[in-house]
Amino acid sequence: MTATPATETSETPEPSGADGAYEHTDRTVPTRSRDRARYDRETVHAILDEAYVCHLGFVRDGAPVVLPTLFARVGEALYMHGSTGSRPLLAAGRTDPGLPVCVTVTHVDGLVLARSAFHHSLNYRSVVVHGTARQVTDEQERRTALDAMVDAVAPGRAADVRPANARELAATAVIRVDLEEVSAKLRTGPVNDDAEDLALPHWAGVVPVTTTYGTPLPDADLAPGTAVPGYLAAL
Amino acid sequence: MTATPATETSETPEPSGADGAYEHTDRTVPTRSRDRARYDRETVHAILDEAYVCHLGFVRDGAPVVLPTLFARVGEALYMHGSTGSRPLLAAGRTDPGLPVCVTVTHVDGLVLARSAFHHSLNYRSVVVHGTARQVTDEQERRTALDAMVDAVAPGRAADVRPANARELAATAVIRVDLEEVSAKLRTGPVNDDAEDLALPHWAGVVPVTTTYGTPLPDADLAPGTAVPGYLAAL
Repeated sequence: MTATPATETSETPEPSGADGAYEHTDRTVPTRSRDRARYDRETVHAILDEAYVCHLGFVRDGAPVVLPTLFARVGEALYMHGSTGSRPLLAAGRTDPGLPVCVTVTHVDGLVLARSAFHHSLNYRSVVVHGTARQVTDEQERRTALDAMVDAVAPGRAADVRPANARELAATAVIRVDLEEVSAKLRTGPVNDDAEDLALPHWAGVVPVTTTYGTPLPDADLAPGTAVPGYLAAL
Repeated sequence: MTATPATETSETPEPSGADGAYEHTDRTVPTRSRDRARYDRETVHAILDEAYVCHLGFVRDGAPVVLPTLFARVGEALYMHGSTGSRPLLAAGRTDPGLPVCVTVTHVDGLVLARSAFHHSLNYRSVVVHGTARQVTDEQERRTALDAMVDAVAPGRAADVRPANARELAATAVIRVDLEEVSAKLRTGPVNDDAEDLALPHWAGVVPVTTTYGTPLPDADLAPGTAVPGYLAAL
C-alpha cells in the first residue's frame, strides 16, 4: 500500500558530490526509498525544465503554507514572480536574508497497479529544493527571469509578445531560490508484487500517464488568418 | 506577467458560510485575486476527487517541507498514508494534537497566452487545506482510508486486489486531515489583454492542457489472456 512517493524500502544512495552532483544533507537524504533518490544535476534539471508549475512552501505564523506557483530555472537558480502585494513575495522582500522555502516539482508518469493493495504505487519524478527566497532587484536579472517564465510555459514565446512596460515591471516582484540543497526522487518500471501473489487472478500492470496539449483556441479578437506560431505546434 | 496562480487583481469574495460552504478565515481569503476564490463544498470536492496526488506541507526544525503524497477524500476528511518510519507520519503520531499541515491540490487546464508578457497566465483549479494531520488508529477507519486511496488512483480497483494483511497493515501509517479551513482558487476562460494591445500582431489564445491515460501495459508475469478490467478502460 506504499503508493505515496514519500515511502518504501531503503538502500544506499549514490555518492555525495560525485561529478558535480548536489551535496547530500540531512534534509535531502530521505528516510525511506533511498534507492529512488538522485542528486545529479542532469536528472534534477530535466525534471525541473519539463515543468512550469511548482508547489512553493513557506512558514507563516508558525504554520506551513503551500501554493501552486509558476516558475522557471535559469542555470542554478529558480525564479518565481507575482504581484508586489502577494504574501510570500512581501515576506521574501521584508525578511533578511530572505524567506526559507521548499520548492517541489512533481510529474506523474504511471499508475502502478499491483495484485496486492500494499504494492500499489505511482511512477513519478519529483524534485525537492530547500532554500531561501530572495527578492531580485537587478533590472537585467528581473527581465531575464520574466522571459524565462514565459518561455517555461511555451518555449519561444518570450520573443513573440509585447514585453512588460515600466508600470507592469513596477507591479511585479521576482524572487530567486538558488539550487544548493536539492534532491530528485523517482520510481520507474513495472509492478513489484510479492512472489506468492503472482498467481492471483487480478490484472496487474502499469497505466501510462501523460500531459497532453490540445489544439490552440485563438482569442475571439484575433485578426482573422493569424497563424498559430510554430513553437506552439511543437507542444 | 501574472502567470502565477498566487496573484492578480482583487474583488470581493462570495459570502462566507453560504449554503454550507467552508468558512472564510484569514488564511483562506487570498490577498490577491479574490474573485478567483471559491468556498462551496461542491467545487472543493470536485477538485480534490479528480486528483490522487497532493503536495503535503509541514514544518520541520522551523523550515518548510513539501512532499508529493498520494491521498483520498472520504466525506469531510483527507487521508494520506505511508511507512510507519516516514518523517511526517512519525511527527503526526508523536505530536499532540497532531502535525500542522497544508495540503494543496492543483490541476492545470490551459496555457493562457496573451499578447503582452504581463497578461500571460494559466487556467487552473486548486484547493488549499490548512489543518492538522492526526494518526488514524481505528482499524475500520484505516481500512476504509486505504481502500479509498486505491480507488482514488483507479476507481473500482480496491475491490479487485488482495487486501492488506496483518503484517502490511502494521507497517502502514494512516493520517487524516479534516476539511475545515479550506478554499479553492481557479482561473477559467480566455486571455485578458489590455484594449490597446488587441491590435498587436502576436497570436493570442488558450492551449488546453489535459491528463491522458495510455494503454495499460500488462505485467510480464500476468497469465496470458487476463483481460484489462473495465474500470481501467474507463480512465
